[in-house]
Amino acid sequence: MKISTLIACGLLAATVAGAQSQSQWQALPDIAPAPADNPTTTAKITLGKMLYFDPRFSSTGTVSCFTCHNVMEGGDDHRPTSIGVHGQKGGRNAPTVWNAAFLSVQFWDGRAATLEDQAKGPPVNPVEMGMENLRAVIDRIRRIPGYKPYFEQAFGSGDVVTMDNAARAIAAYERTLITPNSAYDRYVKGEKSALTAQQVRGMNTFLATGCTSCHQGPAFTGPPLPVGTGFFMKFPTYPNSPYVAKYDLLKDKGRSENTHNPADDHMWRVQTLRNLVYTAPYMHNGSVKTLPEAVRVMASAELNRTLADTDVADIVAFLESLTGPFPDQLMPRLPPTPGDLLGP
Amino acid sequence: MKISTLIACGLLAATVAGAQSQSQWQALPDIAPAPADNPTTTAKITLGKMLYFDPRFSSTGTVSCFTCHNVMEGGDDHRPTSIGVHGQKGGRNAPTVWNAAFLSVQFWDGRAATLEDQAKGPPVNPVEMGMENLRAVIDRIRRIPGYKPYFEQAFGSGDVVTMDNAARAIAAYERTLITPNSAYDRYVKGEKSALTAQQVRGMNTFLATGCTSCHQGPAFTGPPLPVGTGFFMKFPTYPNSPYVAKYDLLKDKGRSENTHNPADDHMWRVQTLRNLVYTAPYMHNGSVKTLPEAVRVMASAELNRTLADTDVADIVAFLESLTGPFPDQLMPRLPPTPGDLLGP
Repeated sequence: MKISTLIACGLLAATVAGAQSQSQWQALPDIAPAPADNPTTTAKITLGKMLYFDPRFSSTGTVSCFTCHNVMEGGDDHRPTSIGVHGQKGGRNAPTVWNAAFLSVQFWDGRAATLEDQAKGPPVNPVEMGMENLRAVIDRIRRIPGYKPYFEQAFGSGDVVTMDNAARAIAAYERTLITPNSAYDRYVKGEKSALTAQQVRGMNTFLATGCTSCHQGPAFTGPPLPVGTGFFMKFPTYPNSPYVAKYDLLKDKGRSENTHNPADDHMWRVQTLRNLVYTAPYMHNGSVKTLPEAVRVMASAELNRTLADTDVADIVAFLESLTGPFPDQLMPRLPPTPGDLLGP
Repeated sequence: MKISTLIACGLLAATVAGAQSQSQWQALPDIAPAPADNPTTTAKITLGKMLYFDPRFSSTGTVSCFTCHNVMEGGDDHRPTSIGVHGQKGGRNAPTVWNAAFLSVQFWDGRAATLEDQAKGPPVNPVEMGMENLRAVIDRIRRIPGYKPYFEQAFGSGDVVTMDNAARAIAAYERTLITPNSAYDRYVKGEKSALTAQQVRGMNTFLATGCTSCHQGPAFTGPPLPVGTGFFMKFPTYPNSPYVAKYDLLKDKGRSENTHNPADDHMWRVQTLRNLVYTAPYMHNGSVKTLPEAVRVMASAELNRTLADTDVADIVAFLESLTGPFPDQLMPRLPPTPGDLLGP
């Protein structure tokens, strides 16, 4: 892990220099990249959307991907931290699924390389969907006979109702959950009236303050990196910021909670800034309630800067330009439930 | 309550006689009736759909109407009994929302006269959405500023963000959740090839067995009655049926749990048979896992009949003809969440 982090930092230095000299601001692509072994197809998207909305492969039958990553909202769950089966609380704020397709690693601590890997995490997390293991998950799906034709449509005949294929389908659907053509994107592509004067001012202040040293690239998550290579930053960088104690920002050690490597203490994947209007509350622990306060916290704890209120307002106006548009989506139809699928 | 039940029974006798002599089988209307004081409009449907899918006015922010009445499935939640906030279990099987618009009373025990009244129940049920009172519910909605324009669009200007209007909007949306034009409906309207020979046989067996003495009318919930007038039946009628003990069918006293009138012991609203394929498990306590078994239980406990396996299979085939089609629905977009809406 340490080596990959070092490589990432090396790549980063080179790539950042290149990116900065080319174009400071980049629009989100209209299509999300897909791995060579899981090209996006309509049949996978159809199946993946069904699985994404299906709560029946959580232990209680009540929690789906959608529960904590609500695509009718900001792709998160509007709570400081999520609630899974049996009312249990998770430890971190649900990251948005919108534009997760553009991240080179998944989860706050980057512990999954791909959307396919990520999809296999929550079902077996005891405080999320609470299934015993992945075998139990796919067994549950197999017991809903109406799914089989959809797996066959997406993956061919034979023994195709597998956990790997379920994860591939969910990932394919998630690659459609992207929001190109926000006001910001249209501005970057040349439509100069797409942003207000305040938003353009905020964009410049955002750059001048130093936010782009981490929040750059089309999703504002850092420079383009190979899939599985995370762009991690220490947060907080300035632990003496008054906000650090106020919002308890040091309690969770971030990446090292998973790698158990002290070098990863308080290292976090740089989060997207797109659709922030929809994803309050903020930070890994969901402790910061408003966007202006989130800007102040980041400026202070990460850059040791105290921003004037007008600068905060301008940056917030700029961040608001990174919102939507969200694609229209038809609700999936889920296949019927065998009555013995779930216990009392 | 007793008087209204008596009136209902009187009305029933007259209406049933009339209905039977007119036409034994009735198709579901293409449009659900709406009360004079809440005509269905597009603006109400739009708002109602948003509210229906919004978990933010449950105490934890995790439970919405959709949670237990999943319109991507059978309008219920595929569990024996539902799970609300903090993992608490309810006592009865979630009834389907599909075609609830055609019922003259709501809930298993008919304790709400209208969809508008029904919508105000679950938010303040401590084991469902768990809000303290209806004032707290509407306060939560008011704190999401993005809702206001939708209320104004639906109900005009002024103090329109009220609980009554929220319930009206949800009811208006629910009046779109109907499934006319099933194979059965097409058959009744004259398309004789819409049913298989087995389904037609099952339809006749269903009639000959006596199922239609209760399950009649377009939704198979009884004869048309004025809104608020329930069509209740005793279940089980034959408490010595072996299924009664097997499935613990006497434990819940039904309507009298609410009215506290012994005459209402084990009285239940006659349930719709539409979309049963999607609504396993069955009965008020969700104890019966399959549709063939549900047919056997009803024949035995309600009609003192033991059906041959072929008759059961035929009736099930007929019941399968009462499925869908389900309307395509666009997902709603919910307005952004203020970060302080929900506690940690």
